[in-house]
Amino acid sequence: MLHIYASTMNTKPTLRVAVIGASGYSGGELLRLLAPDPGVRVEVATAHAQAGRSIGDVHPFLAGRLALTLTAFDPKAVEGLDCVFIALPSGEAMRIVPALLGKVGCIIDLGGDLRLPNAALYEQYYRKPHTAPQLLGEAVYGLPELNRERIRGAKLIANPGCYPTSVILALLPAIKAGLVNPRGIVANALSGVSGAGKSSAVEMSFAEINENVRAYRIGDHQHTPEMTTVLEQVAGMSVTLSFVPHLIPVTRGIHTTVQADLAAPVSQADIRNVYAEHYLKEPFVRFGTRIPELRAVQHTNFCDCAAFVDPSTGKLVVISVIDNLVKGAAGQAVQNMNLVFGRPEHTLLS
Amino acid sequence: MLHIYASTMNTKPTLRVAVIGASGYSGGELLRLLAPDPGVRVEVATAHAQAGRSIGDVHPFLAGRLALTLTAFDPKAVEGLDCVFIALPSGEAMRIVPALLGKVGCIIDLGGDLRLPNAALYEQYYRKPHTAPQLLGEAVYGLPELNRERIRGAKLIANPGCYPTSVILALLPAIKAGLVNPRGIVANALSGVSGAGKSSAVEMSFAEINENVRAYRIGDHQHTPEMTTVLEQVAGMSVTLSFVPHLIPVTRGIHTTVQADLAAPVSQADIRNVYAEHYLKEPFVRFGTRIPELRAVQHTNFCDCAAFVDPSTGKLVVISVIDNLVKGAAGQAVQNMNLVFGRPEHTLLS
Amino acid sequence: MLHIYASTMNTKPTLRVAVIGASGYSGGELLRLLAPDPGVRVEVATAHAQAGRSIGDVHPFLAGRLALTLTAFDPKAVEGLDCVFIALPSGEAMRIVPALLGKVGCIIDLGGDLRLPNAALYEQYYRKPHTAPQLLGEAVYGLPELNRERIRGAKLIANPGCYPTSVILALLPAIKAGLVNPRGIVANALSGVSGAGKSSAVEMSFAEINENVRAYRIGDHQHTPEMTTVLEQVAGMSVTLSFVPHLIPVTRGIHTTVQADLAAPVSQADIRNVYAEHYLKEPFVRFGTRIPELRAVQHTNFCDCAAFVDPSTGKLVVISVIDNLVKGAAGQAVQNMNLVFGRPEHTLLS
Amino acid sequence: MLHIYASTMNTKPTLRVAVIGASGYSGGELLRLLAPDPGVRVEVATAHAQAGRSIGDVHPFLAGRLALTLTAFDPKAVEGLDCVFIALPSGEAMRIVPALLGKVGCIIDLGGDLRLPNAALYEQYYRKPHTAPQLLGEAVYGLPELNRERIRGAKLIANPGCYPTSVILALLPAIKAGLVNPRGIVANALSGVSGAGKSSAVEMSFAEINENVRAYRIGDHQHTPEMTTVLEQVAGMSVTLSFVPHLIPVTRGIHTTVQADLAAPVSQADIRNVYAEHYLKEPFVRFGTRIPELRAVQHTNFCDCAAFVDPSTGKLVVISVIDNLVKGAAGQAVQNMNLVFGRPEHTLLS
Repeated sequence: MLHIYASTMNTKPTLRVAVIGASGYSGGELLRLLAPDPGVRVEVATAHAQAGRSIGDVHPFLAGRLALTLTAFDPKAVEGLDCVFIALPSGEAMRIVPALLGKVGCIIDLGGDLRLPNAALYEQYYRKPHTAPQLLGEAVYGLPELNRERIRGAKLIANPGCYPTSVILALLPAIKAGLVNPRGIVANALSGVSGAGKSSAVEMSFAEINENVRAYRIGDHQHTPEMTTVLEQVAGMSVTLSFVPHLIPVTRGIHTTVQADLAAPVSQADIRNVYAEHYLKEPFVRFGTRIPELRAVQHTNFCDCAAFVDPSTGKLVVISVIDNLVKGAAGQAVQNMNLVFGRPEHTLLS
Repeated sequence: MLHIYASTMNTKPTLRVAVIGASGYSGGELLRLLAPDPGVRVEVATAHAQAGRSIGDVHPFLAGRLALTLTAFDPKAVEGLDCVFIALPSGEAMRIVPALLGKVGCIIDLGGDLRLPNAALYEQYYRKPHTAPQLLGEAVYGLPELNRERIRGAKLIANPGCYPTSVILALLPAIKAGLVNPRGIVANALSGVSGAGKSSAVEMSFAEINENVRAYRIGDHQHTPEMTTVLEQVAGMSVTLSFVPHLIPVTRGIHTTVQADLAAPVSQADIRNVYAEHYLKEPFVRFGTRIPELRAVQHTNFCDCAAFVDPSTGKLVVISVIDNLVKGAAGQAVQNMNLVFGRPEHTLLS
Repeated sequence: MLHIYASTMNTKPTLRVAVIGASGYSGGELLRLLAPDPGVRVEVATAHAQAGRSIGDVHPFLAGRLALTLTAFDPKAVEGLDCVFIALPSGEAMRIVPALLGKVGCIIDLGGDLRLPNAALYEQYYRKPHTAPQLLGEAVYGLPELNRERIRGAKLIANPGCYPTSVILALLPAIKAGLVNPRGIVANALSGVSGAGKSSAVEMSFAEINENVRAYRIGDHQHTPEMTTVLEQVAGMSVTLSFVPHLIPVTRGIHTTVQADLAAPVSQADIRNVYAEHYLKEPFVRFGTRIPELRAVQHTNFCDCAAFVDPSTGKLVVISVIDNLVKGAAGQAVQNMNLVFGRPEHTLLS
Repeated sequence: MLHIYASTMNTKPTLRVAVIGASGYSGGELLRLLAPDPGVRVEVATAHAQAGRSIGDVHPFLAGRLALTLTAFDPKAVEGLDCVFIALPSGEAMRIVPALLGKVGCIIDLGGDLRLPNAALYEQYYRKPHTAPQLLGEAVYGLPELNRERIRGAKLIANPGCYPTSVILALLPAIKAGLVNPRGIVANALSGVSGAGKSSAVEMSFAEINENVRAYRIGDHQHTPEMTTVLEQVAGMSVTLSFVPHLIPVTRGIHTTVQADLAAPVSQADIRNVYAEHYLKEPFVRFGTRIPELRAVQHTNFCDCAAFVDPSTGKLVVISVIDNLVKGAAGQAVQNMNLVFGRPEHTLLS
């Protein structure tokens, strides 16, 4: 097995990139997405506990597809690169971003350290102090469907959380159009377990997850303030959102069901027109009339969504589905990289 | 393999029972529950397409545990029995119950034909006419936590649906105590696929369900009017409930998350006291402080539930879990049989 | 939720038992099996890291079914009990059994410490020294289908491993009757992950097991010498067995496929007669003509098995299935307890 | 959602292809693989029961990625195309291939109709007559690792079965090098259920497959003669192979464990050298020292394999894994198309 894509296809000028935190699921997915592209070269992939191992040893699915040796993180080694992806547990990006800013083309952080507007909110929900609060206003929130123009040419991007991606995309058209009351919204999300990262917790073991469902962090999940902050910007008023995440026996994917009170009676057709129009030109949102299913988006960068009026309760019900590792993490990060560097937005993504 | 429980343990006077519709999942579960009891003898088990086959052939897990040959349904064959369980698809019980009433000790219907208060509602949600509307007021709704005294000695019992069991038990104490606004309630339920019965639909095949989530019948599931009817009786006022069922890749179990607006601010401790008190003496509801998980109730007749105040949204969040084939079907039917015949309520159940 | 079976049903003289290692899957399954029996009282349940917690807190499915507080192991506390079950990781039973022998009615060890004939084999396969080699000849190998008479009244029982139970039961009739060549046998087993116990290993996490299959310890699994030792006793000659265990995305169950060379041409009917005759009176082996499936034995103490002649290759193919936590562990331990104390062999088991 | 890859990327001369049988899993996978390639244009996709529906409606994961309307099969519509893929149930290709031969550039049949050497064998294992026996000697068996040179420029290719791909690749180096006795080989394969195609059989429903394992067609699976035919060509002598396929609760993938008697004692290192050398230049076989896992090959065209000497039994144990829909079907078909048309062999594949 000799064939390595990079060596055979690498014939034109390339983006030179780094993946910081390459041994986890998001890091592995980034490498999987980047590997076949002759226009990108992964120069550095770090994973401090695995330094010295080949990438194919740590991620067997990448064996023969990407020839790389993992290294310990060293800011010197990434200086001058075009794009640095950070796929570390929350709390770590804020320690390394300050040293990288201005020394690399663009930083895209897949974690939660740069997403919230202030340190107080961070400390309340992430349960630790923020060590670089000066960064909190600086990063562009990397949801292309909301901030496409600001992402082009950005130097620092906070890649959205997986749950916020699915919840915000489900609500964006309705909130923007004033169709729903932004108070009292209910969002229940079902997540595949890869969302929790590689885990050695007994409660994430197969025997504890299979044939099981488990809600967690009811009312205080760290993604809740991320969603409300973004939705409040869109709504121009305060938003209350009762968000309950659940773990289900699925490896990949987030399924979100949102219920919100309609601001005024509206027909099913009108709702659909608003959503369809809103997402008409979006390359990665498929708004349709069928109830979306996780399977249609797994291993893709798509968000499928559909909206239903429940006339007997006056509620709008919206379902959205994404792959938490793609549109909810690595795929969206690549989509952001494409925007930053003026590449076709769907390059490498499907 | 000679050993059959019934023959070795059958030493005292017994209840003589029939299971109509014994080849499905609920029918099989009924037989599994009834098999080891020396106090019950299954005289008749019917399944028209499988008539003539042994029960161990149709349900291999019952081989060697129950010696029975399936027969076609014949009203004569069940006359005089103490208890007849009907585990047929909706639309079939209403055709056979009229001929059995008065000729057997008690009829317990596990389907939906006897649960709703009138034929119009049945036709709207079940999408077919009701052929025995005179039965609709006659059956006792067999939720022991609500109707225990009426169940004792009843002749005709409508065993609750699986979703209604989980949703009603989640809301009962709060509605009874007036803690929540009965309008605008949201209930999202996740169901194992055995709830759909033995299915030859492509969309129920493993390859279509595994690694997938699929919402269905948004806002118009046939269990919605069953829930609202019961909850309105409890509330003494009209109830609106936005109910969305979802299929998840689990064989058994229903996980329900309910969000309702608190009628007035209330502490977490007060909520818990109301629920704990309400369920203190219930043999099959375990109210606790931990977030319930499906696994704890699978293969049991328990409903585990917990209630949480979300102060930032003013919502009450209640989680309840049951095994759809046990507390949601066959187990609750046995619980009802125990009550009807004055046996200890937990006989055969765990 | 007040109802506890033991208190309501405990009306006749009881066996007083202990479960050492009650927090794992086998320990929890033992307690689940023992809980509803009025003839057994669990006096002691130990789990050193969880001492002080209630059993319902550690095993939520037992909440309300068994009122027990876990304790640290103390040999004094179990002195005089009728039966002590040990469900500890291998290497621990050999440290506590010497102090208990003669002070309790019977010891049933579910681990591997007492199964092999000598310390050298133990050290080779378990990769640690045996600290109580004097016990190795003393324990009765607790496979009722092989040693029923020796089990009755035994003081020390080595409960068989899960893989050996399934492989030995698949081969016993053929080897005893000399139908197959005992050399060159191939056995491939597929195990649910609960067989590995509660695990915090990343490789046992849901995301690593789901949609995956992984063979392990090819040719050197610690159960291999247990199987060959037993089969050699039956065959009266040396046995070679190529055993490969595989982890599959299932919580419970072992599926074993055995291929062995027929000693001489034999018809399908003859093979079936030999097996059917051999297992005719066994309460927990169901030999049949259909290909066995895991689902039929899950949560039961049954071993289902079937044997097929493959005339074009001259092989006998035998399939056997068990629930690794029941017939492969806790259920077989209860079966042994029943035999030791002269109770009906299937008491508590189904 | 307007973006369709084909329309945006289609800028150079293309291969014009058809997919006959586009509504099944293999057909959908073919379309998924072909969609992003600017060098291929799918001109025709047929599915007689779904004619008139858009491909995104039938395969929601393809919505927005491929703009195609399914049609009924019409030989006229595919005349002149470069490549016709047939992904129909066995028995159907033999009815349409005769009319297409000579009228299209190349036919690649993913079914079993063209793989066996004679009609008698076909009828024995496929249980129906072969209606075009004249084709049986004509097709090239499309396993690139065996027949790469014959595939280049071929007009008619029998794409290998999923099981044969995994079993043959596991044995090829050992048989070629004479390391194992070609008689008495044992192969046990575990298959994801997508291998059975879209199914409306109750026994393929989620509730029947989940938490289950089921062996089937023991000793008479229709892929057995395909394997032995190919292996006999390699061995130059007769081969006997005891093959048992098993369904496991996995959607995609085949895991194969092969045990064969070593022809003579050989070291682990020697075995590895033979295999490593044999597969050194193969783009899609990764031979390694670690035990292969399904997860590493899912959604890829790789076969991972490893070989182990079990000295105590004199057996060689080989594990191989593939994705049944990719290397076991659609991916291998694309690999063959690439070879036929002189494209880089890994185009579109990863």
